[in-house]
Amino acid sequence: MTEKILVGIDIGGTTVKQAFIDMGGNIITKWEIPTDKSDSGKNIVPDIVKSVQEKLEESQIHKSSVLSIGVGAPGFIDVENGMIFEAVNLGWKNFGLKKQMEELMGVPTFVDNDANLASVGEMWKGAGNGATNLVCVTLGTGVGGGVIAGGEIIHGQNGMAGEIGHIASVVEGGAPCNCGKKGCLETVASATGIARLGLEAVTQSPEGLLKKKLDERESISARDVLDAAKAGDDIGISVVDTFAHHLGLALANLSNTLNPETIVIGGGVSKAGTFLVDKLEAEFKKYAIPKIAKETAIRIATLGNDAGVIGAAWLGKTSLKKMENEVQ
Amino acid sequence: MTEKILVGIDIGGTTVKQAFIDMGGNIITKWEIPTDKSDSGKNIVPDIVKSVQEKLEESQIHKSSVLSIGVGAPGFIDVENGMIFEAVNLGWKNFGLKKQMEELMGVPTFVDNDANLASVGEMWKGAGNGATNLVCVTLGTGVGGGVIAGGEIIHGQNGMAGEIGHIASVVEGGAPCNCGKKGCLETVASATGIARLGLEAVTQSPEGLLKKKLDERESISARDVLDAAKAGDDIGISVVDTFAHHLGLALANLSNTLNPETIVIGGGVSKAGTFLVDKLEAEFKKYAIPKIAKETAIRIATLGNDAGVIGAAWLGKTSLKKMENEVQ
Repeated sequence: MTEKILVGIDIGGTTVKQAFIDMGGNIITKWEIPTDKSDSGKNIVPDIVKSVQEKLEESQIHKSSVLSIGVGAPGFIDVENGMIFEAVNLGWKNFGLKKQMEELMGVPTFVDNDANLASVGEMWKGAGNGATNLVCVTLGTGVGGGVIAGGEIIHGQNGMAGEIGHIASVVEGGAPCNCGKKGCLETVASATGIARLGLEAVTQSPEGLLKKKLDERESISARDVLDAAKAGDDIGISVVDTFAHHLGLALANLSNTLNPETIVIGGGVSKAGTFLVDKLEAEFKKYAIPKIAKETAIRIATLGNDAGVIGAAWLGKTSLKKMENEVQ
Repeated sequence: MTEKILVGIDIGGTTVKQAFIDMGGNIITKWEIPTDKSDSGKNIVPDIVKSVQEKLEESQIHKSSVLSIGVGAPGFIDVENGMIFEAVNLGWKNFGLKKQMEELMGVPTFVDNDANLASVGEMWKGAGNGATNLVCVTLGTGVGGGVIAGGEIIHGQNGMAGEIGHIASVVEGGAPCNCGKKGCLETVASATGIARLGLEAVTQSPEGLLKKKLDERESISARDVLDAAKAGDDIGISVVDTFAHHLGLALANLSNTLNPETIVIGGGVSKAGTFLVDKLEAEFKKYAIPKIAKETAIRIATLGNDAGVIGAAWLGKTSLKKMENEVQ
């Protein structure tokens, strides 16, 4: 018998990331294709199937070696049936992703939210380091998240669990958020939020490194703010302190309720590394129950863009196993 | 074959509540015995076993009809092994509760935290109404809680999950909490917290119904504050508004992360009923993601003191079933 492999797929608005992954979670080969969003995204799945089949042939792997396919997609998902309720930036609405994939590939397919699968990827092979109680936060353009408890992804009643970015952080006078509320964590802890806070701060006190950046480019990025803070710039530091306060408080309160072993911080902002984690940990420890403050590890994500496909492979592997157990 | 029954036990600092419960979760008979805390609590389990055996005889139920025993206990618990790490008010430390109960009764026994089992009780037969994604909050002397996701109790890494009372609520200048922090939810949302807020408010503005109460009794209870608020007293209303703001915000943020179907509010304070729920819902809706604000139900617990034994019976029933599935 040939060794089985897992297929992991991570569908994004620009590209679809794909990988063949061994049963231990190691990437055998990975590649990506552009996401064809034309015609309400009806070419996306056929494109994926064609590409997977070509890559199997190229790698001289027989289709019968593929144990399962895991797919991460953005938006609201009925994970039970592998249905996408709505993925605005792909054009999908009530789309039977699992069904179409299984029809075209003939391999058991399982679907979950992309942020959840990135969390699971970090649990399996990344910064989670096997921890089965995990909170993952992705600090990118927005703030996303995933919660894993007892090794299981927490979906909640309507698949909306993990929306850490919409925790109410600035209770009075917060900035408007895309969700319709004001003062969400996303408005102060995303790259966009940090850049906005930086611009506000330097407009109020036009001095230091950020003033220089602003004069050069007429804009301020999150990177500018983080770099300035690292270089000891007062305005940069005050913005990072605000960021760390709100994120540290939110994560402490989540940990007081969920008692994770590890909190994994990913996304572009996390590239600021230990500088950020140190600030964050100090705020976290102020608000977490003493025992939890002591025992919860805060770590930077290690898998980068591979987290999604690795998590998708995990989903395929474990869901199939569960299904087989239920049939017995 | 006689119908099987479940034994549910809820060990508290003053009494041990016990019940025989049918497979559908209905109480057949219930009774309680005093908790003998002498000699580091070494008589507690033998007392329970004696009492259960007497009640079986009295009810003419043969011991072989007892399917399983579920036990709720306070403190930190290793649920896997049914070990109590520490239950200060029972005198137990590293106590093998499951082991002793199984040795004395010869019936499979399962142990969990009492607050978790009360939550499960409400899920099975109470206000949870079968919802498998549930957050329960108990507003008593302190604030306790339980989180259920996908029908499973969330324990976290060290069994500390569900410590909702220690969410940081008053971020600046909060009152000291038993846990060593300041401004925990418990300091503003427990009966003790409401009474303290009431006393502070009426000391600052000595007028209205609460001033009258204070003159009569030289103290203010949570009940006084809630009654005054219901009667339209301004100071009472301002305290209830503070309470509702902090609890509503905390529950909204939990719901933004966990997406429960139902939030169940129990404990003495919850007896204020719809008056309280209305205020709480208004604050909850301010801070929850719009879809979650719309779809999450907030309900008052319905089982009262029976929640613990019913939840314990559920634990015994479902844990045994899981064990059998694993053996197969």
